[in-house]
Amino acid sequence: MLPQIWPAVLTLGWILIAIAAGEGLMAAVSLATGDGLAVDFVVNAAITAGVAGACVLTTKGRPFDLRFRDAALLTALSWFVVPAFAGLPLMGAPTNLNFIDAYFEAVSGITTTGATVLTGLDKLPSSILLWRSTIQWLGGIGIIGLALVILPFLKVGGMQLFRLESSDRSENLAPRVRSVAAAVGQIYLALTIGCFVAYWLFGMTPFDALNHAFTTVCTGGFSTHDASFVYFHSDALEWVSVVFMLGGGLPFLALLKLGSKGSWRERIDPQIVAYVATAAVLSLVFAVWLNLRPGLSGFDNVTHATFSIVSIMTTTGYGAVDYVHWGTFAVMFFFMVSFIGGCTGSTAGAIKILRFQLMAGIVWQHIRQAVRPHVVSPIRYGSRIVTDDQLASVGTFVFVYIASFVAVAALMGLFGLDAVTGLSAAAASLGNVGPGVAESIGPAGNYEWLPDAAKLILAAAMIVGRLEVMSLLLLFVPSFYR
Amino acid sequence: MLPQIWPAVLTLGWILIAIAAGEGLMAAVSLATGDGLAVDFVVNAAITAGVAGACVLTTKGRPFDLRFRDAALLTALSWFVVPAFAGLPLMGAPTNLNFIDAYFEAVSGITTTGATVLTGLDKLPSSILLWRSTIQWLGGIGIIGLALVILPFLKVGGMQLFRLESSDRSENLAPRVRSVAAAVGQIYLALTIGCFVAYWLFGMTPFDALNHAFTTVCTGGFSTHDASFVYFHSDALEWVSVVFMLGGGLPFLALLKLGSKGSWRERIDPQIVAYVATAAVLSLVFAVWLNLRPGLSGFDNVTHATFSIVSIMTTTGYGAVDYVHWGTFAVMFFFMVSFIGGCTGSTAGAIKILRFQLMAGIVWQHIRQAVRPHVVSPIRYGSRIVTDDQLASVGTFVFVYIASFVAVAALMGLFGLDAVTGLSAAAASLGNVGPGVAESIGPAGNYEWLPDAAKLILAAAMIVGRLEVMSLLLLFVPSFYR
Repeated sequence: MLPQIWPAVLTLGWILIAIAAGEGLMAAVSLATGDGLAVDFVVNAAITAGVAGACVLTTKGRPFDLRFRDAALLTALSWFVVPAFAGLPLMGAPTNLNFIDAYFEAVSGITTTGATVLTGLDKLPSSILLWRSTIQWLGGIGIIGLALVILPFLKVGGMQLFRLESSDRSENLAPRVRSVAAAVGQIYLALTIGCFVAYWLFGMTPFDALNHAFTTVCTGGFSTHDASFVYFHSDALEWVSVVFMLGGGLPFLALLKLGSKGSWRERIDPQIVAYVATAAVLSLVFAVWLNLRPGLSGFDNVTHATFSIVSIMTTTGYGAVDYVHWGTFAVMFFFMVSFIGGCTGSTAGAIKILRFQLMAGIVWQHIRQAVRPHVVSPIRYGSRIVTDDQLASVGTFVFVYIASFVAVAALMGLFGLDAVTGLSAAAASLGNVGPGVAESIGPAGNYEWLPDAAKLILAAAMIVGRLEVMSLLLLFVPSFYR
Repeated sequence: MLPQIWPAVLTLGWILIAIAAGEGLMAAVSLATGDGLAVDFVVNAAITAGVAGACVLTTKGRPFDLRFRDAALLTALSWFVVPAFAGLPLMGAPTNLNFIDAYFEAVSGITTTGATVLTGLDKLPSSILLWRSTIQWLGGIGIIGLALVILPFLKVGGMQLFRLESSDRSENLAPRVRSVAAAVGQIYLALTIGCFVAYWLFGMTPFDALNHAFTTVCTGGFSTHDASFVYFHSDALEWVSVVFMLGGGLPFLALLKLGSKGSWRERIDPQIVAYVATAAVLSLVFAVWLNLRPGLSGFDNVTHATFSIVSIMTTTGYGAVDYVHWGTFAVMFFFMVSFIGGCTGSTAGAIKILRFQLMAGIVWQHIRQAVRPHVVSPIRYGSRIVTDDQLASVGTFVFVYIASFVAVAALMGLFGLDAVTGLSAAAASLGNVGPGVAESIGPAGNYEWLPDAAKLILAAAMIVGRLEVMSLLLLFVPSFYR
């Protein structure tokens, strides 16, 4: 039995309607600011809405019953197709990107990666800048939805630990999910508003505050300035950003539990503690190292170290100082930090804290059992016992993540990129970080100079990372289609 | 109950007696060649024998009953202590190394890594050169013993799959092991003699043939010439070397089964097929890539590609052409190949084919179960079913191996090494490969210029890699000592 394509097509249609609506909204922004792009945006909105309408209409009257196969297919399809439409506004004046560049930029946006092929951001019309930030913010919603519904369902990377009670494969997903989604959506919106107000209060223009609020809470990292946060020269803004980047990396579903009854141990997801502690320790280590070097003074070092570590660890990717010029230790350090990620169920990418916790649990259990073979003690996550199946799922994820990284890095070598640039581009794309640790693609560089084929591979890597590899691999199993 | 230190001390004593005997033998070589180092070698042999004697005598009359704790302690102790004595002859004239350099060189020898701090090898006395090759060959025996007895016993990295029937922890290890060890020793000796004869027939001097036979079958890679295999300018010798490097990477214990009764499927270790196929495919890919570049002609490309790939994959580390100058794809490619390794139970280092096979099995099983949750099929290795415990052991190994690599690379960053050199030095040391992919430590470079602390860390990394990380980690578990 082939997967039923209709639920996927219908869902894709609804997502494209949201994109078309966004493009329509930008036409209004364009009219308001008088940048002359209103007609372009309307045309793009019309194209997108046309395709969206076709998707919705062809599925009319067919039953919508999302099953296992359909979920995997829907997910892959959406993440590859939607950026083609979201990138349309970048193909016209004044950016005039070709299709591949526009697709790269849109994929980078929707996957909340934040790698860019554009320079001269400061001079671009407001409507274009806002659109870039908006698709990143919308992408953030998509990612949380993915982590809430699809990944636990497909048993990707231990996400079944976070399965909603009724999201079993034999049942219809819709009803229970809706109420949780609404609550999570409110948190996301509240974070965005809070971030906007804080940025504004601490000195950004309302327009910059809105754009950066959009791209902070989704841990995306697109900016309205080529210099990113360097433009603002403000310690206060960097600290505000640290707070909201960390917020974007929190496990949204687990946050709902904070308000529930029970002991603290049951209410606080263990990821949160490890996540904040990791960010704090890494920032501290790096600040100490910076302080041993001549140059900046104490507080500046703490600020820049914390901002840079949190920016890379949460896979946001804003630049405040160009760490590429801090020497080889900094390069190695940031390269490694780009594999960490935030919590599962957040907008952050990369391997994520939960997997490190469970891998450490596996290693520790294994060592203990080698020493004391007759003492059997299960691996726990908070108060829950983690099953062997969940642990295998985590191990599998970490292995295929690293294998994908190696494959992408090797392909970059084929394009003649030097080793550091290739390794870094692979890590920054797969982990949805954005900037790499090599000068050309670092906080002060961009991806414009890469060959088209390399851009397509990196765009694919962003999607592969976003789908946590496994949900894409499923589509390549022959029995999936039987 | 503390681990009983006596079995470890006694075994260490016997190993040191072997080292002292070797140093004594070199005194004879020195006398025969008249290089004037005979007295030095006798003094070093006497120091080593003195310590060895003390170890053996203090344990006299105590029961030798190797238990779990003792095995782990013995192993770690031996690999850290023995190189200090094996390195003594390098501290005198004409090499005049300081202790750290001599220790680095001896660790690199005994772990069959092959990284060197020496230049001007061509002008060194024969006795010194032969001693370097000999400690590497002796190290090879130690590694096979480790893989035969200790690692399966400690359940390191799935090696319990290869446990000898009687090597259960409740029993004394000695009797059964002796007969298997004798058989494996014969294979090792036969390979060495075959390699020596072949090198000699194809044009090496007997002295070069002996040295390179010693360092080929142990996949070590020390040479008697700074230029390594480039010195010989011989395609034939490179092909001979390919055969015996591959031989050194075979699973020695599993080779014994080839002669037993039963079907081919039972007799051939699945590693062997995957190992040869991997080497062939990688060599082919690289030869094709070389052929697309201007420069060498077809057959030379195949020869150099095969020699270089087999040299790095088996973690031997001979240089024939300096692949560092073949561009960034070659650098990336060889960097990645340095993680592969040979078969388990061989002298090769790194992650090793078996683990990749089992990790692939885990990933495949996990994907299949996501698609068809009700079909349960175990992971097989040949005709055997691999238990969950063994799979966890493999997953744990791969994770801690990569974590160790990351840690060593980060430490290298602290010494100001550029990213490629740091990553490559970490991979080449931990994987017991030897040369890295960065110019300074590549086939044409060496490790002499590194800071002392970096050398000590890399030497430790070689031992950590050799002990497959886990058998060392055990010593850090508090309950190990209870």
